[in-house]
Amino acid sequence: MKTVGVLLSGCGFLDGAEIRESVLTLLALDQDDIKVTIMAPDQKQYHVVDHVKSDEVKGLERNLLEESARIARGEIVPLDKVEAKDLDALIIPGGFGVAKNLCEFAFKGHQATVQEDVKKLILDLHQNKKPLGAICIAPALMGLVLGDKGVEVTIGDDKETAQEIEKTGAKHFSTKVNEIHVDEKNKVVSTSAYMYGEARLSHVSQGIRRCVEKVIDLA
Amino acid sequence: MKTVGVLLSGCGFLDGAEIRESVLTLLALDQDDIKVTIMAPDQKQYHVVDHVKSDEVKGLERNLLEESARIARGEIVPLDKVEAKDLDALIIPGGFGVAKNLCEFAFKGHQATVQEDVKKLILDLHQNKKPLGAICIAPALMGLVLGDKGVEVTIGDDKETAQEIEKTGAKHFSTKVNEIHVDEKNKVVSTSAYMYGEARLSHVSQGIRRCVEKVIDLA
Repeated sequence: MKTVGVLLSGCGFLDGAEIRESVLTLLALDQDDIKVTIMAPDQKQYHVVDHVKSDEVKGLERNLLEESARIARGEIVPLDKVEAKDLDALIIPGGFGVAKNLCEFAFKGHQATVQEDVKKLILDLHQNKKPLGAICIAPALMGLVLGDKGVEVTIGDDKETAQEIEKTGAKHFSTKVNEIHVDEKNKVVSTSAYMYGEARLSHVSQGIRRCVEKVIDLA
Repeated sequence: MKTVGVLLSGCGFLDGAEIRESVLTLLALDQDDIKVTIMAPDQKQYHVVDHVKSDEVKGLERNLLEESARIARGEIVPLDKVEAKDLDALIIPGGFGVAKNLCEFAFKGHQATVQEDVKKLILDLHQNKKPLGAICIAPALMGLVLGDKGVEVTIGDDKETAQEIEKTGAKHFSTKVNEIHVDEKNKVVSTSAYMYGEARLSHVSQGIRRCVEKVIDLA
């Protein structure tokens, strides 16, 4: 039985992992009889956003592992306890949490640094030819880590974001919400999901299902 | 186009709405081309639970509407602004949030009181013969509001909880996780979901999909 890691970055699309993308990733994996290891960094999240007003709430602190555990129903491990040898593949759902907590892409674009454990796990998996799935804005993270390998990704058709990602050395391919892009050489599969902010959940679900299936196929 | 309300009770199964059940409800509705109105009470949640340790975090406060908005991606309305005439049906995903925030079932069993706006909306919909869907522990809430109508529900096969629900006047029927129980007379559809705590997500998804489809069918 294959084990696929799912890396979360909080709980809520404005300051953490996109909840729906995370759940749909877990659903697709379970539908294919895949064992999952859900993980998140055990560290403070960048900030907290009120999801009614879309405004930052000053003075509040939350922890990424604790918030991600809400999606994981408590079955979660700290990222620094996970090694590439324990996984057959890794999938990273999107949400601003990826661009604010797992790296600084939201603030520094292609010049962003990547959280150390995140970078190490992605590089170790890549070196061992294990596939990576990147959803929504997570392909930007792939660019930051694997741009020098000319990694191919999609984040849909947002030109500005695509251009920023290409500055890492990555190549961007435009896709629709229910489509995926596959980089066979680097074994990176991506889908845009809620990068199309107005997308229908059922279409997001189709794209994520295809992404998960291709990752499993490559594992 | 039909409009179905989805009543949330926070974000995280130990102190709020069960996240996966909420997302799967929204997915099934979107797959059937149903318009949704996501709602939650604009009030303080009973307490906050650390989902890694399963322990209450003393001194922390969160708001139900703000936390539910994480699942709703900001597209949410305060419960007291929703009227039965605006909806063709209502579905309530589970999680301890239902039993701690929407009513007191977690603490007082069949003697629990129900949050006023929740009670009013359920009664108004019932009176207008509009169907209700209740997932996981939400059938206990149906018992508290519609027990005197002899409402029929399922929460799976947890005998103690079922007995407590029957003290409201409701009738309980045992089911498997991917099954539903339909009370045609009261137009109440229920499914156990994560009342089976170890259930597979794909099986929970099947039960919720059936529940949502039957609710739409009755609407």
